[in-house]
Amino acid sequence: MDIKSKIRDIPDFPKEGILFRDITTLLKDKEAFNKVINKFVSFYKDEGVQKVVGIESRGFIFGAPLAHQLNAGFVPIRKPGKLPSDVYEAKYELEYGTDTLAIHQDAISPGEKVLIVDDLLATGGTMSAAVDLIKQLGGTIVGIAFLIELAVLKGREKLNGQNILSLITY
Amino acid sequence: MDIKSKIRDIPDFPKEGILFRDITTLLKDKEAFNKVINKFVSFYKDEGVQKVVGIESRGFIFGAPLAHQLNAGFVPIRKPGKLPSDVYEAKYELEYGTDTLAIHQDAISPGEKVLIVDDLLATGGTMSAAVDLIKQLGGTIVGIAFLIELAVLKGREKLNGQNILSLITY
Repeated sequence: MDIKSKIRDIPDFPKEGILFRDITTLLKDKEAFNKVINKFVSFYKDEGVQKVVGIESRGFIFGAPLAHQLNAGFVPIRKPGKLPSDVYEAKYELEYGTDTLAIHQDAISPGEKVLIVDDLLATGGTMSAAVDLIKQLGGTIVGIAFLIELAVLKGREKLNGQNILSLITY
Repeated sequence: MDIKSKIRDIPDFPKEGILFRDITTLLKDKEAFNKVINKFVSFYKDEGVQKVVGIESRGFIFGAPLAHQLNAGFVPIRKPGKLPSDVYEAKYELEYGTDTLAIHQDAISPGEKVLIVDDLLATGGTMSAAVDLIKQLGGTIVGIAFLIELAVLKGREKLNGQNILSLITY
């Protein structure tokens, strides 16, 4: 079964000229969702991952099952104002303006082996901010995993030096 | 190991007078997170669950591993404007004003057995709206699962007739 065929293309979402890759048609298909999680697990199972970090909110959908399967803890990176204890924040550029991500300061201990997970690699701005946060906490990033990579946007270049896995490429 | 002891209390978040139950200290603890998922799985494994519905965004953290473990599809219920295809929406009351949840119209087929998952049962407004959406799609709700129930707020009464499981009660 080809997992790429389970992605639904939605033209002009969220705005005109954007072709949105809708993963909900994959998620609701139990074989496809199972296959995606198992592919990630088989790739990382011998890496000694101690914390899986998922980026709000679609990163949670892949990060949480991976944490459970890899016998690791799960750490959410969230939008500002959502995490109740002391946080570090990182800003990143959008097409217009900036956005911010936050992580709890006690989420990761120095030297812990960290896998970061999100659904989509586009320009790489979001993941680059997440990498900065993990480094600030002293975590050792053993890998970065995406379901989808939009190769034409060259997000990989912004994540220079990281081990990147993407299961589906456009 | 007592999973309740892994919840961190944060006074006055998000505003004065609220005692916030912070689950991130449980999530990052691999034994505690593993135990929570396994408790849910053992409770629902013989129910023939076909779709696990998680409510954005902390519901994704428990719903997605459950879908994977129960060999079910995963369906996100999201804030308005996030789901790219045709949706149904349900409004619910907040302390001040209203909020809205959305689900894709093709997320669940009539008669499918559905488990709905969220992190917290407070007044029950959010989950009650989620129940309405699943019923609108013709799904059969076999259970509703929460990590935490704030019993004093009597959210259970708003979910009258549903099978409710909560692992931790305050």
